[in-house]
Amino acid sequence: MTRMGLYCSRCSMQIPFRYQDMKCVCGGTLLVHYDLESVAKTMTKEALWHRSSSMWRYKELLPVSDPDCVVSLGEGWTPLLRMSNWEQKLQLSELWIKREEQNPTGSFKSRGFSVAVSLLKESKVTKAAVPSNGNAASALAAYASRAGIASFVFIPLDCPSLIVEECPLYGASTCLVDGFIHDAAAIIEAGKKDQGWVNVGTLKEPGRVEGKKTMGIELAEQLGWTFPDVIIYPTGGGSGIIGMWKAYLELKALGWIQCDMPKFVCVQEEGCQPIVEGLRSRRNGADRNALPSVQAGITSSPTGMRVPNPPDLDLILSIVEQSGGTAIAVSKQQIAEAGQTLGAQGISSSPEGSATWAGLLTLCDSGWLSPSDSVVLFNTSHAMKYAASGVPDSLPIIKNYEEYLRLRNA
Amino acid sequence: MTRMGLYCSRCSMQIPFRYQDMKCVCGGTLLVHYDLESVAKTMTKEALWHRSSSMWRYKELLPVSDPDCVVSLGEGWTPLLRMSNWEQKLQLSELWIKREEQNPTGSFKSRGFSVAVSLLKESKVTKAAVPSNGNAASALAAYASRAGIASFVFIPLDCPSLIVEECPLYGASTCLVDGFIHDAAAIIEAGKKDQGWVNVGTLKEPGRVEGKKTMGIELAEQLGWTFPDVIIYPTGGGSGIIGMWKAYLELKALGWIQCDMPKFVCVQEEGCQPIVEGLRSRRNGADRNALPSVQAGITSSPTGMRVPNPPDLDLILSIVEQSGGTAIAVSKQQIAEAGQTLGAQGISSSPEGSATWAGLLTLCDSGWLSPSDSVVLFNTSHAMKYAASGVPDSLPIIKNYEEYLRLRNA
Repeated sequence: MTRMGLYCSRCSMQIPFRYQDMKCVCGGTLLVHYDLESVAKTMTKEALWHRSSSMWRYKELLPVSDPDCVVSLGEGWTPLLRMSNWEQKLQLSELWIKREEQNPTGSFKSRGFSVAVSLLKESKVTKAAVPSNGNAASALAAYASRAGIASFVFIPLDCPSLIVEECPLYGASTCLVDGFIHDAAAIIEAGKKDQGWVNVGTLKEPGRVEGKKTMGIELAEQLGWTFPDVIIYPTGGGSGIIGMWKAYLELKALGWIQCDMPKFVCVQEEGCQPIVEGLRSRRNGADRNALPSVQAGITSSPTGMRVPNPPDLDLILSIVEQSGGTAIAVSKQQIAEAGQTLGAQGISSSPEGSATWAGLLTLCDSGWLSPSDSVVLFNTSHAMKYAASGVPDSLPIIKNYEEYLRLRNA
Repeated sequence: MTRMGLYCSRCSMQIPFRYQDMKCVCGGTLLVHYDLESVAKTMTKEALWHRSSSMWRYKELLPVSDPDCVVSLGEGWTPLLRMSNWEQKLQLSELWIKREEQNPTGSFKSRGFSVAVSLLKESKVTKAAVPSNGNAASALAAYASRAGIASFVFIPLDCPSLIVEECPLYGASTCLVDGFIHDAAAIIEAGKKDQGWVNVGTLKEPGRVEGKKTMGIELAEQLGWTFPDVIIYPTGGGSGIIGMWKAYLELKALGWIQCDMPKFVCVQEEGCQPIVEGLRSRRNGADRNALPSVQAGITSSPTGMRVPNPPDLDLILSIVEQSGGTAIAVSKQQIAEAGQTLGAQGISSSPEGSATWAGLLTLCDSGWLSPSDSVVLFNTSHAMKYAASGVPDSLPIIKNYEEYLRLRNA
């Protein structure tokens, strides 16, 4: 087993591995720590040639200790598509799109939940719950079903109905919440003891970050063991940014890559941009305790980027700053136009994926990107999952845990 | 270049390669013929370890001669998922599902159109048209956009609206047809000379069968260079069956596999089952000229399996018989139940994919499958693409080419 324990991303304290409670006493987020010398013994670049085209090819850098507990539906090793004709138009050295929508649940969320649910299985957990804007819920539902674990998902009422409908299809107990993702999270926190739920929300357990980390390792392998200059990523809770940053650090420590850290660019939608605002506050000298929390007047669309209170905003901001990256907000209109542009290139992109294209155009216009830059965008899901079809009538709508209980007991 | 020319699947006559008109003088279908000695020089099992995880890893067995003309969106090399817990329940030696919904356009149709559109590009074609029950249209639309080729798609009015909506998203000129897929095909045939369309319908050009062939090659590689005993496949026009059979023959001729031909099982839906009926007719001694054509009373759902007149029914039947396979029809109800069963395993399956599960259960019940059998099912698309959302109001509805012209001129 290559998994050694956990370490704090803020104060660096190391503790033994545990499955729940990822907050360090200092308030930082705990992440998985590996014995990289052991990793290097069996995971070599040559060994990878013979491994499956799945994110589990990097099993030594994933925290599941019992191979029989791996819960897989065919996730990861998604195509990295070059957009050559746009490189010239936009004056970039390289432009790529990572097609995360080609994962088993039609979104990048498959990666995190493949690891998280494997850890649930290893820990003999029987009930898992998640608050989600849709794709995380559908991924938990699918992987939990595959593992024979009961899943309970709580999704804001205005989230895309087709994604919501996937959850009961996969066998999840599904509730719509009259509120935002933090309201959904509050319901789980209120009920978890009573109901026996393990909360697998963002940064609540170690698996999802580790699963998202494989996006970074894969990117490096697909580019010939290097990173691009810039990664533009649609950011909500931030586990993807944290994961890819961790991939960079681990590959660097293994001596597999020589390049600088990629500049991480977080893209959000206007109307819910805590990362953009947090970065501005920090640039103006505010310390972490002065970072804004729950914004009033959230007006952005119900996508994966709408996370008013990322669980560890400070860590995301540190990564972005450390990398020389930035955070930008784009408008609904820019996102819609970007979706059309990508569609006309043969790519079905979710609003989140489209937002990275809109962000790319903004950064090209502003001169932030330079002609020598290689850039990778992430298309996190299919456009069609966001098609309008109305709220499923069959699902209950609740505001809080009391209403949940009332419904269950009715 | 490994592509040598075309050969007739019925009379074996060889002719030089051409892009259009795949009917031999004898009435058989022309298929691509390769110089397998040349193929073997550069395509070795070892060489494949270092190639991209895309169907283009088999480029020597694909008919595109100019590598710059390859039009790719990240297709093929889809996961093959083992269903271990069902092997015991169903008493089978191995049960696998090939997850074709993880292709770039969310369906197996990506494969055929990646090759077909590459050939269009190589042939400097500027306008392509296809009759389709949905997924072929959306695949043509996506790949044609990527290649800068104009696409024109004609889809029966009752086909899934979300798939229909993808076509204009990808930039295709999209028409709904008040009729079946053969009515849509008739419109293209009537207009192709006037409009400059190349018809890329099933078996109209050599690329789609070759692209679908990669499903078979991949399956063999993923299983360690062997085929399963049985392949259960949802069949409409039949290019997938023809392609996988061709994969078997070519791999056998290369000496890469030693196994017997897999038994091909075609699954259709009750209410449109020309393959099931054709097989029955042949078993009763009917010759190919007596095969039934356009059935009256088509009552099956608008899926990819609803093809009342497969372009070369005789070839499909010959392959099924040669392989020791069979053809079965399942009901709407069985398909719906199978979709639930697969969903509860974490798999989002299209009605076509669900039909293979329903077919599997039928063949287990009847004793046709034996406990020593290894079986592979194909899930050809995502469930969500088939969600109801109503006919898009913005699209024209036509019955024939005259109405098309009237609309265009209005």
